[in-house]
Amino acid sequence: MNNLKGIGASAGIAIAKAYRLEEPALNIEQKTIADKEAEKQRFDDAINKSKSELEKIKDHANRELGADKAEIFAAHLLVLSDPELLNPVVDKINAEGVNAEFAMKETADMFVSMFESMDNEYMKERAADIRDVTKRVIAHLLGVQIPNPSLISEEVVIIAEDLTPSDTAQLNRQYVKGFTTDIGGRTSHSAIMARSMEIPAVVGTKQATSTIENGVMVIVDGLDGDVIIDPSSDVIAQYEEKKAKYEAQKTEWAKLVNEPTVTSDGQHVELAANIGTPDDVKGVLENGGEGVGLYRTEFLYMGRDQLPTEDEQYDAYKTVLERMGDKPVVVRTLDIGGDKELPYLHLPKEMNPFLGFRAIRLCLEEQEIFRTQLRALLRASSYGNLKIMFPMIATVSEFREAKAILLEEKEKLVANGVQVSDSIEIGMMVEIPSTAVMADQFAKEVDFFSIGTNDLIQYTMAADRMNERVSYLYQPYNPAILRLVSMVIDAAHKEGKWAGMCGEMAGDTIATPLLLGLGLDEFSMSATSILPARTQIKGLSKEKAQSIKETVLSMSTTEEVVAFVKETFQID
Amino acid sequence: MNNLKGIGASAGIAIAKAYRLEEPALNIEQKTIADKEAEKQRFDDAINKSKSELEKIKDHANRELGADKAEIFAAHLLVLSDPELLNPVVDKINAEGVNAEFAMKETADMFVSMFESMDNEYMKERAADIRDVTKRVIAHLLGVQIPNPSLISEEVVIIAEDLTPSDTAQLNRQYVKGFTTDIGGRTSHSAIMARSMEIPAVVGTKQATSTIENGVMVIVDGLDGDVIIDPSSDVIAQYEEKKAKYEAQKTEWAKLVNEPTVTSDGQHVELAANIGTPDDVKGVLENGGEGVGLYRTEFLYMGRDQLPTEDEQYDAYKTVLERMGDKPVVVRTLDIGGDKELPYLHLPKEMNPFLGFRAIRLCLEEQEIFRTQLRALLRASSYGNLKIMFPMIATVSEFREAKAILLEEKEKLVANGVQVSDSIEIGMMVEIPSTAVMADQFAKEVDFFSIGTNDLIQYTMAADRMNERVSYLYQPYNPAILRLVSMVIDAAHKEGKWAGMCGEMAGDTIATPLLLGLGLDEFSMSATSILPARTQIKGLSKEKAQSIKETVLSMSTTEEVVAFVKETFQID
Repeated sequence: MNNLKGIGASAGIAIAKAYRLEEPALNIEQKTIADKEAEKQRFDDAINKSKSELEKIKDHANRELGADKAEIFAAHLLVLSDPELLNPVVDKINAEGVNAEFAMKETADMFVSMFESMDNEYMKERAADIRDVTKRVIAHLLGVQIPNPSLISEEVVIIAEDLTPSDTAQLNRQYVKGFTTDIGGRTSHSAIMARSMEIPAVVGTKQATSTIENGVMVIVDGLDGDVIIDPSSDVIAQYEEKKAKYEAQKTEWAKLVNEPTVTSDGQHVELAANIGTPDDVKGVLENGGEGVGLYRTEFLYMGRDQLPTEDEQYDAYKTVLERMGDKPVVVRTLDIGGDKELPYLHLPKEMNPFLGFRAIRLCLEEQEIFRTQLRALLRASSYGNLKIMFPMIATVSEFREAKAILLEEKEKLVANGVQVSDSIEIGMMVEIPSTAVMADQFAKEVDFFSIGTNDLIQYTMAADRMNERVSYLYQPYNPAILRLVSMVIDAAHKEGKWAGMCGEMAGDTIATPLLLGLGLDEFSMSATSILPARTQIKGLSKEKAQSIKETVLSMSTTEEVVAFVKETFQID
Repeated sequence: MNNLKGIGASAGIAIAKAYRLEEPALNIEQKTIADKEAEKQRFDDAINKSKSELEKIKDHANRELGADKAEIFAAHLLVLSDPELLNPVVDKINAEGVNAEFAMKETADMFVSMFESMDNEYMKERAADIRDVTKRVIAHLLGVQIPNPSLISEEVVIIAEDLTPSDTAQLNRQYVKGFTTDIGGRTSHSAIMARSMEIPAVVGTKQATSTIENGVMVIVDGLDGDVIIDPSSDVIAQYEEKKAKYEAQKTEWAKLVNEPTVTSDGQHVELAANIGTPDDVKGVLENGGEGVGLYRTEFLYMGRDQLPTEDEQYDAYKTVLERMGDKPVVVRTLDIGGDKELPYLHLPKEMNPFLGFRAIRLCLEEQEIFRTQLRALLRASSYGNLKIMFPMIATVSEFREAKAILLEEKEKLVANGVQVSDSIEIGMMVEIPSTAVMADQFAKEVDFFSIGTNDLIQYTMAADRMNERVSYLYQPYNPAILRLVSMVIDAAHKEGKWAGMCGEMAGDTIATPLLLGLGLDEFSMSATSILPARTQIKGLSKEKAQSIKETVLSMSTTEEVVAFVKETFQID
C-alpha cells in the first residue's frame, strides 16, 4: 500500500478502481497487403466504429454539458463523412496496395500539414480535428483502445497527469466517482471543474500516474487531500464510514437550500455562486445560491473561431437572468488575455502575460468588442436583476472611461426604443493592489466592489499563482491581504456601497470568520461550497468575528493569523 | 525636415552627423579560385586586419570602461590566433580551391554547430565568440564595413534599433555625442547606460532607423525627447543656444559638488547614487554623491560562466567601500531571475518571470550562493560604511530568515577571528505591495527601507514595465503609489528608522517636491542626476512640500497630481 498526498480540490470520498486516462502509443508500419477489398472493408469498419463512438460521446456531452460542448464532436463527425479525406485513403489502398492505417496516416498528415501552414486560426483548428479523428480511426484499425471517458460504464476513479477541458467535457458523473492528477492546485482548471461537477478530487499528487496501475483499487479523499492505493479491507471500511458521515453532513446541508444565510446573532450575508455558462445556473439554485456573484463571460468567447455576435451573447445573458429570477446576477465583462487566450484576436505573445494587455485594458482599446458585449448586456437587463462589473481596473480614469462607454451605449439603445433596466448597478473587480489602496476614491464612483482574491494575492505578493516555485507566497491569510480587503470593505461602507468577494478565498473555512469580521457583504464561491458555508456561518457570531479584526490586522505573518483563527473559532 | 518624438532618456543636446549602427549583410558565394597562394595571403591579411581592429577595441574598452568589459575582446583575439580554427580554413583553400570567405564560413559553421550542440554554457559562449570573430574576418574579405563604434573618429550621433551592452561598451565619449533608438523606455538598459556615460539620448522613437540616413545632420534633444533630422541652419543655431544654456547650467551644478543637500528652510536630505560596478564610484564622487544608495551586485554574476568566488566578491565590495570612505554604501544582495538570467544556474523558464522565482526567493533556497555573498560582504565590512539590504522581500518571515542567515554567517566569521564591522545596518527593498502595506510591522525588524519604485509600480498597477501595450499604467505619480510610499516613510519614522528610494523616480523633477513632502530621507539615483536634484532641492521649502501632502494623497488620478505639483512648484 502506497499513499499519495495532494491537494483536496473537491470535497468527498471516492472508492473505486483506477482508470488511467492516457494516450496509447499508435505504432504504424507500412505493409503490403494482398487482399485490397478486405483492407477497404477493414477501413470502412473502423470508420463506422469511430462514428458510432463519436455519436455516443456527442449525445453524452449534449445531455450532461449542454449543446455548446457537444459541438466539437459534431465537427469530428463531419470530418469522418468528408469524401475529400476518405477517398484518397481508399485510392491509396487501391493504387499502392498499402495497409489502411498507413494510407490513413499518410493522407491525414498531408491535410494536417497543409492546414497548419495556413495563417488562419480556423484552418488550424480543422487540422486539430483531423488529427483527433485520425487517431481514433487508426486506433480501431490497430485494435488499440483509445480512452473514451464518456463511454466508461463501471465505477472508476480517473488517474491522469492533468485533465483538459475536453477530457472533463466527457466525464460521466454516474460512473466517474473521483479523480486524481499529478499536477494542478486548488485554482487549476481541473480543480474548479471537479467542484462544479461535485466529483471528489485530489490534484497535484506529483506521482499519481507513475504509481497507480489500471484496475487497482483507489480511495480519493478530497476532504483531506489523500489518495490511498490498493487499500486493505479495513482501510476501505474506515473510508466507507468517513464517506457515509460526509454524505450525512451533505444531507444536513441540503436542508438549508432555501434558508437565508444568517449568523448566530442574526446578521444576514449573501452567499452567491461563480458561474461560467447558462447551464451552471441549475447548480446554483440546487445549492441554494442567493445570487450569481461572478458570471465569467469569457467562456462565450472561447473554443470558437470568431467573436460571439451581440445576439448570441444577448441570448446567454437573458437565459441566466431569467433563470435566476429576481436574484442578483453580477456579470463581469470580458476578461481575456493573461492565461486565457483567444487565438482569433491574434494578440502578441507577452513576456509576463499576467502583467499584460488583458481584460479592461484590451476592452478600452478594442472598443467594438467591448461595446458589443455591453449592448448585449443592456438589452438583456430587463429580464432580471443585472449588475455589471469591469475586470482588472487599475486606475480611476479607466473606471470612468469604461462606465462612460457603458452609459453611451445605454443612451443609444434607449434612444432607439430598446427597453433597458434603470437599476443596473455598475461596479468593478478589486484585484489590482492600486485599487485596494485607492478604494476610498473608487467608492465614490462605483455602485459596488467585488474583490478578486486570486489576482489580488498574486499581485500583492508578486508571485505567479501558477508557478510552483513561488506557490508558498500565495497566502490568502497574509495580513497584507487582509488589510487590503479590510480597506476595500470599509471604503465601500463609508459611501453606502456593498463589497463582495469572488475569489477562491470566499468559500474557505478559515477565511469565512475573518471576512465576516471584516464586514464582507457578499461571498461568491463554487456552487457546491454554498451549503457548507451557510452551515458554518449559522454557527458564527458576527460580533465575535468583528471583535478579532484589529488583533488579526496587526499580526505580522500568515502562520499567526491561521493559528489564531483556528483556535478562536475551533476550526480543525 | 522630419522630426521624431521619443523619450528623453539622458539630458543634454547633441548636434552631429548620423552614424547608423547596423549589421551589414554578408553574402558569401562559393567560388573556384585559380591562385591559391594569393587567396591564402588574402585570408592572412583579413586575419591581421581583424586582429589590429580588435586590439584597438580592446584598448579602448579597457581605458574607458575597465578591464572587465575589455575581456570579451581579449577572448576574440584568442580565437583569431587559434590554429584549430585557422588551419582547416587554409587546408580547405589548398585542397578544394575555394575562396577564403567560403572556406572560413564552412569551417566556422562546423565549430559553431558542434559547440552549440553541447549542453554546456561555456562552450555555447565560445560558439558566440567564433560567430562574432568570423563575421569580422569575412567582412574584411568582402570589403564590407562592420560597424565598430569604438573606432569612430569624428563626431556622430548613433542611430540604432536598440543598443546592446556590448555596443555601449564600445562607445567613445569623445566622438559619440548622442544617440537615438527605435525602442526602449526611461528604464531600459540603453537609457541607463546613456545617463551613466552622460551622453544625450532619446529612446523609443519607433522610427529612427527607418527615417534617418547615414551622414545626415541630426539634433538629439535629450531634455525634451526630440530628434530633429536635417535641420536648417536657423534651427541648428537655436539648438546651439539651448545647448549652451544647458552647459552653463551644468557649470552651475558643478559648483555644488561638495555641498550638502539642504532645502531653502534648512532641512538636509541625502542624495546618493545607484551603481553597478566598482568603476562607477568615480562618477558618484565626481557628481557629489553623498553615498551609494544602491549597489546592484548582480553585475558581478553576469557575463561569466560560473558563480563569482567569495574572494572575487570580497575584492569588489572592499574596493567600493574603500573608495567611498566613510560615506554609506547600501549593497543589495543578489537580485537575479526575472529579466536578469544567469545561464549557468539553469533556472527553468517561467510563464511570468517578473512574478517568479527570483532575488531573495532564489537566495533562500540556493543558500550556498547567498551565504557566499554574505561572507564576502561581512569580510569587506570593516573597510567602510556598509549597509546590506535584501531584494524582493514579500513577507516578514522571509526577512527574518534572510537576516538570521546573515547573522549566522557573521557569528561564524567572528568565531574564526575575522574582523567584521559591528555597525552594519540591515534593511530591505520595498518593491512588493505587501511590504508597503505591512511597513509598520517590517519597520520593527529592519534598520532601514529602500523603496524600489520600478518594481513597486509595476506590481501595484499589475503592469509589466517592459510591455509597451500597458506602459500607460506605469504611473509613478498615481496616488496609489504615493500613498504606499507615504505609508513606508511614516512607518519607518515611527520606529526611528530611515527610508530611502532607489528607483528611477528618486531622480525625477516632479517627484522631488512630492518625496520631500512625504519625508523621504535618502534619494538614490543615477550619478548624473545628483547635481540637478541638489540644485532643485536647494530651491524648495520642506515645509511647503509637507503642506501639500494630504491634498495630494486624497487626489484620484495621476493627471491631477502632476498638474497640481507643476503649478505649486512652478515646474515646466
